Amino acid sequence: MESFLRDAKNSAHIAANLTSRDKNRILNKMADALVSNTQRIIAENQKDLDFAKSNNLSGAMIDRLLLDEKRVTAMANSLREIASLKEPVGRVLEGWINEDNLRIEKVSVPIGVVAVIYESRPNVTSDVGALCFKSGNVAILKGGKEAEYSNKIIATILQEVLEENSLPREIISLLPDSSREGVAKLIKMDKYVDLVVPRGGEELIRYISANSSIPVVKHDKGLCHTYIHENADFKKAIDIAINAKCHRPGVCNAMETLIIDKEIAPSLLPSLAEAFSEKETFLKGDMEVNEIVKMELATEADFDTEYLANTLNIKMVDGVDEAVSHIRRFGSGHSEAIVTENYSIAEYFLNQIDAACVYVNASTRFTDGGVFGFGAEVGISTNKLHARGPMGINELTTYKFKIYGNGQIRE
Amino acid sequence: MESFLRDAKNSAHIAANLTSRDKNRILNKMADALVSNTQRIIAENQKDLDFAKSNNLSGAMIDRLLLDEKRVTAMANSLREIASLKEPVGRVLEGWINEDNLRIEKVSVPIGVVAVIYESRPNVTSDVGALCFKSGNVAILKGGKEAEYSNKIIATILQEVLEENSLPREIISLLPDSSREGVAKLIKMDKYVDLVVPRGGEELIRYISANSSIPVVKHDKGLCHTYIHENADFKKAIDIAINAKCHRPGVCNAMETLIIDKEIAPSLLPSLAEAFSEKETFLKGDMEVNEIVKMELATEADFDTEYLANTLNIKMVDGVDEAVSHIRRFGSGHSEAIVTENYSIAEYFLNQIDAACVYVNASTRFTDGGVFGFGAEVGISTNKLHARGPMGINELTTYKFKIYGNGQIRE
Repeated sequence: MESFLRDAKNSAHIAANLTSRDKNRILNKMADALVSNTQRIIAENQKDLDFAKSNNLSGAMIDRLLLDEKRVTAMANSLREIASLKEPVGRVLEGWINEDNLRIEKVSVPIGVVAVIYESRPNVTSDVGALCFKSGNVAILKGGKEAEYSNKIIATILQEVLEENSLPREIISLLPDSSREGVAKLIKMDKYVDLVVPRGGEELIRYISANSSIPVVKHDKGLCHTYIHENADFKKAIDIAINAKCHRPGVCNAMETLIIDKEIAPSLLPSLAEAFSEKETFLKGDMEVNEIVKMELATEADFDTEYLANTLNIKMVDGVDEAVSHIRRFGSGHSEAIVTENYSIAEYFLNQIDAACVYVNASTRFTDGGVFGFGAEVGISTNKLHARGPMGINELTTYKFKIYGNGQIRE
Repeated sequence: MESFLRDAKNSAHIAANLTSRDKNRILNKMADALVSNTQRIIAENQKDLDFAKSNNLSGAMIDRLLLDEKRVTAMANSLREIASLKEPVGRVLEGWINEDNLRIEKVSVPIGVVAVIYESRPNVTSDVGALCFKSGNVAILKGGKEAEYSNKIIATILQEVLEENSLPREIISLLPDSSREGVAKLIKMDKYVDLVVPRGGEELIRYISANSSIPVVKHDKGLCHTYIHENADFKKAIDIAINAKCHRPGVCNAMETLIIDKEIAPSLLPSLAEAFSEKETFLKGDMEVNEIVKMELATEADFDTEYLANTLNIKMVDGVDEAVSHIRRFGSGHSEAIVTENYSIAEYFLNQIDAACVYVNASTRFTDGGVFGFGAEVGISTNKLHARGPMGINELTTYKFKIYGNGQIRE
């Protein structure tokens, strides 16, 4: 493990100093290579599918694993899209002259060696590998055991392109020991690895955060709220609530709890409940909600649950302050929304709520690197530091100061 | 400990939402309070001095601890200077309209609860408390045992001002249990604390990095180099080298190793050695250097040592690539400099060296928040993520996305 990581670290300055043109050319070659190796990929993918079937993995899980011609083409297109993104390295973020007449520039640079730990979908291997490559980083990828063969063939194809271009294969590689012990070792190797990005299960992320000596950018849970204020437009409110909950209930930016002002609850709740019942959403409400529309009683534990399913809590409040308190207590700092036509209340909510993304009159489902316009995303960070919210290639860079002098010394 | 941290966390939104005017007014009141309580501070400081003397602490250590009228006035002035800095919260860092016609703004916001662990100088208590307050954060301060009474009285005076202004005292407070066990507990409390900033001893920092479940921004060692390229201006080279080593040898941005091109070594080394001998610098050189000027032989361990003293390694190299390799191997990513009149070599060095600050024709001693123009600094981060290099009040903020919609839902 250590010699592998040392090799990765030693390739970092090569990756960091590639020209933008070379990076984009190689990314397009990688896309071509994926397409021309489609049959090779499908054959290896079949081994993962066989393993999944013999272990009775769920149909949804098997669908996530599956690679066919169409999906391999999509993976290739994603690489071409990443190639077309604006160069993230070398952006001058700030620049000034100090009192000593030093010219100081704050410039974006690659982070170095980035380890990404993820599950299921094999396309993450090529996507994240390409995002790291585009941003001048070395990528160490650790996918799930269930996609082992698929990930291996994808990484191999990318590495073949690297080698054809006289670049070390360590620039994009899979962690050689992908066991739990391998991960435990990896996260102590701060000498070689600059960032660990865990995506996936809460338990894994908690384990890595607690034990890593390397900085961690987490991608974990979203317990998102939508608060319908008494001055809400009812049509917008219903559309936004339905979209936030039902568009894709299993993702982190889906709503888990709807908060509604008591002033409008009697007139709005019945039509809201009807709209949700059309979507077959299972509703749980607090006592006040139950006085208007009968449903299962929501417990405190419910308000603390990320369902990742078509289930919704509804809570009634007496104005914005109670809504803000509830969100402060139960929110995970991911995405929170208010629906209101009241300017001052909207501004108040935007400022009081401490979350990566705070919305007025829009669905929390928009929290997404692609939707934000970042191009492909590494994920959605639930960190407060370094990267918060959608994480694109710019968030795979850090900065350094370049200081241009003319013989200055400090007095 | 936990109830204390919960109170701190619960004050975070109060600190975050103070107006700029209120924050500056209160900071100036804190400055006044320090001055009007000078005698109280000096009396408590005396207890630390007595303890230090009875424990035979060094004269330098005692001088760092000492507070007199002049130093209390300086502390107050530092608070007034922090009050005068530009508001760090609410800066619109980016803003755009996405394809859905959502207006997206990336805005700076406070981090939340920031714990700072430091040693010796009691003025850090008021400085860091004020920097956190100015940036809308709650500060949890953990100073050294040797300054216990001084830190306590300073924090108390700041808290008195908070309470006079109807603010919770938890906004600036000392960690109640400042023992090792207290710190061990603190760094696991990611539920309440958003950032830990350790400043000081390498061992402490390594311990915190390895064991904290809270993100850490380290402030540790600087193993800085100055490389004199064959096209250097000799006068600039000597001035810069002397300044980088001798101006304040005990700080992290001082040079530890001078690298010199073999082409110019015969003509430059003798005068360099003479200039250093005037400053009583103890020189260690590699074998090639010793063939020109006799000095102690530098070992590999020497090249890996941050002396924090008036001792310097000298290494001879055959051009910029060997210099870059040496810095990659031994540098700590803090501050690195080249002296050259050659444009292409300067650019090459700036790009190839991965450090927080890379200089051309200037002393590494300039790596400093004040010198950079940031005002007072929290320290100099040796992290690659979040904050790198000098860390001012802007680096005590993170960001959130505010998204302004008009009923948008995701299709």
